[in-house]
Amino acid sequence: MRLSNIKQNNKETTKMDIKYELVEKRKEKPDENNLGFGNYFTDHMFIMDYTEGKGWHDARIVPYGPLSIDPAMMVLHYAQETFEGLKAYRNEKGEILLFRPEMNAKRMINSNKRICMPGVPEDMFVEAVEKLVKCEKDWVPAKEETSLYIRPFVFASESSVGVHPAKTYKFIIILSPVGAYYPEGVNPVKIWVEDEYVRAVKGGTGFTKCGGNYAASIAAQVKAEENGYTQVLWLDGVHRKYVEEVGTMNAMFVIDGKVVTAALDGSVLPGVTRDSIIHILKDWGMEVEERDLSIDELMDAARSGKLTEAFGTGTAAVISPIGELCYKGEAVEINGFKTGELTQKLYDTLTGIQWGKIEDKFGWTRKIDL
Amino acid sequence: MRLSNIKQNNKETTKMDIKYELVEKRKEKPDENNLGFGNYFTDHMFIMDYTEGKGWHDARIVPYGPLSIDPAMMVLHYAQETFEGLKAYRNEKGEILLFRPEMNAKRMINSNKRICMPGVPEDMFVEAVEKLVKCEKDWVPAKEETSLYIRPFVFASESSVGVHPAKTYKFIIILSPVGAYYPEGVNPVKIWVEDEYVRAVKGGTGFTKCGGNYAASIAAQVKAEENGYTQVLWLDGVHRKYVEEVGTMNAMFVIDGKVVTAALDGSVLPGVTRDSIIHILKDWGMEVEERDLSIDELMDAARSGKLTEAFGTGTAAVISPIGELCYKGEAVEINGFKTGELTQKLYDTLTGIQWGKIEDKFGWTRKIDL
Ligand SMILES: Cc1ncc(COP(=O)(O)O)c(C=O)c1O
Ligand SMILES: Cc1ncc(COP(=O)(O)O)c(C=O)c1O
Repeated sequence: MRLSNIKQNNKETTKMDIKYELVEKRKEKPDENNLGFGNYFTDHMFIMDYTEGKGWHDARIVPYGPLSIDPAMMVLHYAQETFEGLKAYRNEKGEILLFRPEMNAKRMINSNKRICMPGVPEDMFVEAVEKLVKCEKDWVPAKEETSLYIRPFVFASESSVGVHPAKTYKFIIILSPVGAYYPEGVNPVKIWVEDEYVRAVKGGTGFTKCGGNYAASIAAQVKAEENGYTQVLWLDGVHRKYVEEVGTMNAMFVIDGKVVTAALDGSVLPGVTRDSIIHILKDWGMEVEERDLSIDELMDAARSGKLTEAFGTGTAAVISPIGELCYKGEAVEINGFKTGELTQKLYDTLTGIQWGKIEDKFGWTRKIDL
Repeated sequence: MRLSNIKQNNKETTKMDIKYELVEKRKEKPDENNLGFGNYFTDHMFIMDYTEGKGWHDARIVPYGPLSIDPAMMVLHYAQETFEGLKAYRNEKGEILLFRPEMNAKRMINSNKRICMPGVPEDMFVEAVEKLVKCEKDWVPAKEETSLYIRPFVFASESSVGVHPAKTYKFIIILSPVGAYYPEGVNPVKIWVEDEYVRAVKGGTGFTKCGGNYAASIAAQVKAEENGYTQVLWLDGVHRKYVEEVGTMNAMFVIDGKVVTAALDGSVLPGVTRDSIIHILKDWGMEVEERDLSIDELMDAARSGKLTEAFGTGTAAVISPIGELCYKGEAVEINGFKTGELTQKLYDTLTGIQWGKIEDKFGWTRKIDL
């Protein structure tokens, strides 16, 4: 498959003809007070196949269940695979809202292109998400801070032991009702600044949600936990100096009243939450700097008190305040290990929009037609 | 799972109790003249499971066939997966030889450790390979230059949408009879020096055979082919300057009569063929330099004629002569695009040992007890 073909496929606008094969009896719904993250999957999943020369075909919603996978299937060997993560939220009227799903669709197209997989056209992606969530609407929990986590993923389904772009792929969406990411509420976490392991490097795959990035990241996460820290702050792979992301979140730092975050230059994932937070901050008239931020500048700012707040942003936790940074043995506390005022206000504003509690002046939410 | 536990597991020395479930009727063997690479799989595969707290268990040889995989299985999302590649060779007496399988076992332990998976203890790995090859002995082809390709792989089999080390894994071995890698014989290939995409970086996973490395490499390979080149020469991810590997082979350059190859410092795969070639060269009294080699030094040496031969080394092709390098638009020919004398001699020596045609003074081959 040539890269030029892959590009073309992203422009397809075919309306999908989804076949439904529904379960006879739906599973019992779990207790909304104890959902956790990823413990339950709904009754159905969406599947669509890709065949070279034919494009995406056979869109279907079928009972959730095991896939039959040849042991030589390329995804098990060469990790040609990408995923996305977004949520459906139930508002007080009982309606179901998606949050900027087209951003996830676009990001997956970019991820797939980097590892030579065909993109799922944006309208197909969004339609597939909408139709599956509609089919599983009773699975969208109603309790405060709960939501339906949506996991679209694509993988190489050709059987081959040669390294090359596969000729066939699968696009699947599965759904999991989830509770609040931090059941005890939003509280600061302790962050380990990693200077041995590298997550991503320019020229690599850091800007994508390809599986390999996550496998590579686990060792540092385990190391941080062994040292009593919750997450890792990643430094860039070239200079081991510039702050990139925090675990599986983008990282933001309030220094001298300005919000500083890494620019999107190839090794950082373009988070949907990151983008939304930047829009909200600018709307509030605040200055946001997307630029290189060295760990030395950051530690200096922390020591001198110029660093007043710090937080990670991502779909799972929305906003996660950072209360402590540990770099080469030196630990610095941020804002007395308390959630900062701006951090809390951003959390309230963004979750307010997502759950439909406050006006969505940016037009980000998308109501599912039930 | 803590890293410290994973280390311990590599020391297990339990002899395996392999259960056999054999097919009733074996498949017909393919024509040995048209095997290609990875087109056929044998009748059986080896499977063993890992469960946290219990270790590796349920070693079995079962009919080759599809696995039942939950759509939330972590390998499909976070690519916690590694593989190995080695071969079984039939000698003129009809015996079957393995080539340094303990090297592959050790490398997989290192790969797995980096991405936080339990290692398969060396003796288990080798025993599993031997027992499976023995079971499939009639599949080892006899024709010149053919062999049985052995593909062991490990992947995270837990179902979870959270990023963390899985609690369960599978170790599987599949076998494929293969023909000569280059059916027209060993001929020089044209190599594209890649200066945009990066394969690996220090602190990352370059020294491992984890799936993510291969997914990330495909884009450059496609680009090289679109430009009329066979393979990519990778430069290091930090300086974009030092020569690392060529496609999925280690790269060696004969400059001023010395053989120069990248040192094993984290971003280069420690190839079994590389190690064997270095031993053979030293045995012949030749100088081998494992060191940083900049693309500028290499291009200068090519222009001035000091670069007399160049080749890639790997299990699949054994040795693959490089006849042309193209860097930033400048193409230089090596040895008049002919296979060099040393390259040919190395190929003949190593394949001679592998197929049991010449004395194995290094004790590298391991006869399967049939
Ligand atoms: C590496 C990484 N960075 C950042 C993010 C945050 O992205 P988003 O806000 O779109 O969830 C994620 C999660 O998706 C991630 O995996
Ligand atoms: C990236 C890479 N480099 C080098 C090699 C050569 O290693 P070996 O000689 O062990 O086959 C391989 C193939 O295994 C590879 O995938």
